[in-house]
Amino acid sequence: MTDFAATKAMFHLPEGMIYLDGNSLGPMPRGAPERVMQMMTGEWADMLITGWNRGGRDGAGWMVQPVALGDRVGRLIGAEPGHIVLGDTLSIKVYQALASALQMRPGRKVILSDSGNFPSDLYMAEGLIASLQQGHELRVVAPEAVLEAITDEVAVILITEVDYRSGRRHDMAALTARAHDMGALAIWDLAHSAGAFPIGVADGGADFAVGCTYKYVNGGPGAPAFIYVAARHADVARPALSGWLGHAAPFAFDPTYTPGAGIERMRVGTPPVLAMAALEAALDIWDQVDLKALRAASLALTDRFIAGVEAACPMLELATPRAHDLRGSQVSFRFADGYAAMQALIARGVVGDFRAPDIMRFGFTPLFIDAGDVDRAVAVLARVMTDKLWDRPEYRARGRVT
Amino acid sequence: MTDFAATKAMFHLPEGMIYLDGNSLGPMPRGAPERVMQMMTGEWADMLITGWNRGGRDGAGWMVQPVALGDRVGRLIGAEPGHIVLGDTLSIKVYQALASALQMRPGRKVILSDSGNFPSDLYMAEGLIASLQQGHELRVVAPEAVLEAITDEVAVILITEVDYRSGRRHDMAALTARAHDMGALAIWDLAHSAGAFPIGVADGGADFAVGCTYKYVNGGPGAPAFIYVAARHADVARPALSGWLGHAAPFAFDPTYTPGAGIERMRVGTPPVLAMAALEAALDIWDQVDLKALRAASLALTDRFIAGVEAACPMLELATPRAHDLRGSQVSFRFADGYAAMQALIARGVVGDFRAPDIMRFGFTPLFIDAGDVDRAVAVLARVMTDKLWDRPEYRARGRVT
Repeated sequence: MTDFAATKAMFHLPEGMIYLDGNSLGPMPRGAPERVMQMMTGEWADMLITGWNRGGRDGAGWMVQPVALGDRVGRLIGAEPGHIVLGDTLSIKVYQALASALQMRPGRKVILSDSGNFPSDLYMAEGLIASLQQGHELRVVAPEAVLEAITDEVAVILITEVDYRSGRRHDMAALTARAHDMGALAIWDLAHSAGAFPIGVADGGADFAVGCTYKYVNGGPGAPAFIYVAARHADVARPALSGWLGHAAPFAFDPTYTPGAGIERMRVGTPPVLAMAALEAALDIWDQVDLKALRAASLALTDRFIAGVEAACPMLELATPRAHDLRGSQVSFRFADGYAAMQALIARGVVGDFRAPDIMRFGFTPLFIDAGDVDRAVAVLARVMTDKLWDRPEYRARGRVT
Repeated sequence: MTDFAATKAMFHLPEGMIYLDGNSLGPMPRGAPERVMQMMTGEWADMLITGWNRGGRDGAGWMVQPVALGDRVGRLIGAEPGHIVLGDTLSIKVYQALASALQMRPGRKVILSDSGNFPSDLYMAEGLIASLQQGHELRVVAPEAVLEAITDEVAVILITEVDYRSGRRHDMAALTARAHDMGALAIWDLAHSAGAFPIGVADGGADFAVGCTYKYVNGGPGAPAFIYVAARHADVARPALSGWLGHAAPFAFDPTYTPGAGIERMRVGTPPVLAMAALEAALDIWDQVDLKALRAASLALTDRFIAGVEAACPMLELATPRAHDLRGSQVSFRFADGYAAMQALIARGVVGDFRAPDIMRFGFTPLFIDAGDVDRAVAVLARVMTDKLWDRPEYRARGRVT
């Protein structure tokens, strides 16, 4: 069992704040400043270019960290070692996966996604389709309609497992199986899954998986993204973003591109060394976490929050599924004046966020949120709602970006 | 005039090392650890998500830093304010520029580059062409043949201004003018130019310019790349990598993509906040540097090194042009056993690097290299060469990546 009181002590949490927005940007692990300083003053400063070969806490070199740290993220998503690599941003990783998938299904023209997907995934698909000019179509259906919409026209499904607004969770295994039955490939965006609950990308048969590490993984603002490619595709998928670090021999400086072995070909440019150092401090915590215990604790927290809010705030409508199988690690409520209500809540030290048009969103991660936090958050929310504290001009003025 | 003794004191340089590899990875500004710590413990830790709106040293928010810090990099390359943005890696920025340029010249099929270009630029072009399947051709000619090869078949020239091996510098204004005469566009890769000497992307008429900030700019390993788009194209170029932060209204979460105004559309995903903090410390130094004085000092250093080495080491063949107009801020010599010779040199505290097949490469940046360093480097190199110190087994074993 994981001692979540111990993990809570490993994060810096501002005094008096209950932070229910780790699904947007995770809090800072207390070990992160030291690891980053060590990388800067102990590696960059004195190793200089030789850090590429001998930097990193294990001395194996910065150059191998995207795969070495990638494997530690890989445990969170059920990836086999050596099939996941860190780098770039999630949008770039979506593009890589999608471009590879379309090349692997040349006769098919439909990219299937759903209206609960994060917009950037849809935008990246749009941009790729516009560039290719090969008659591809981005078909966006309702989340509930995805299974039925997977036909033999579909080249690839591009699905975010957990809806960033409602917190509704798709059935990865079922949708992937259906995609495979129809001869299609499956790309899973795990932005709101990695670090939220155990995932089985290998067991679930995902062809590609992508995600970020600044939400539940707590890697810091702008922490690197990741991409997983199933073993059966790793030496087949031809990367569209064929950068030098994905070359079979980057330092041979060949004039023509030869893709590297397996996941190495999904590397593009120079690795984000500072960002990886901060992420490493978060992974030091994750290495100690039992993911089944995490899920059990997460469901207990979200159940407790739902019960508390529904009892105290009848004016809020639950947007998150009650069924555990359909829930991620966040709870969302609909409220027409949700923006103002969230501002009033934040002003009282309970930090969630708002997503248009009417979603009040709360993330729960047992690593640093406990039942006492849930109870206090419920009490503050109850006061904001019953006393209509949100109905003040200072909370209605818009300006926040997150 | 810039006081280069003062700038030298602003960098951490390992005791006893003469670091002539700032063209691969710049040394650490002494102010970088403090700025990064401030960002971590003063912003990430306590501001959490509100850092996107109120983080940064000026409190303007992390979200605007890619353009705000971009403008400070922009001074180094002669960009007008508001036309350059930071993010991603250089290879990704090459892809963005190239994909945009091809869309702007739909009737033309030739991407012209030269054999002195950095391989990743050629690889990214290859990958784009393979994805598009629209009959494009990557035509690679000798560096001296570029001007003549710019015909009316050419959609875009993709040229790195300074050759990473020889240090030979292209004539940006002449090649760009020729490209425009022929109806083509010009993309300039400034990897070995930004921070090496003053550049005039706006005056020189460049359509796009891209570069990195971890070499002469001293932003740290994996520091963000940049892209410049000429004002006349900024609202025309349609980004292929259409990520959410390039959207006109990222936080409206529209299901369809609308490109942002001007350079904003070249943003893709979440900004690399930690890396930007380190870069900011480097820019604090750059803000004080007169770029004409930098160029004069750089030429004095490279002239001095060439004269010293040619006098002492007749077995080394100069690979860098003698003419100032054709020179960047590095000096390269050819030597058949250059790999071993560089290892012997590094073992004696003079750090340059080696590029296959036979290039010994030395970068000179007046910010932290002075005439005394040059004289000491020449003396050590002379001893390595005249005493054949390189001809020892320990220097012949290969293993370094950079």
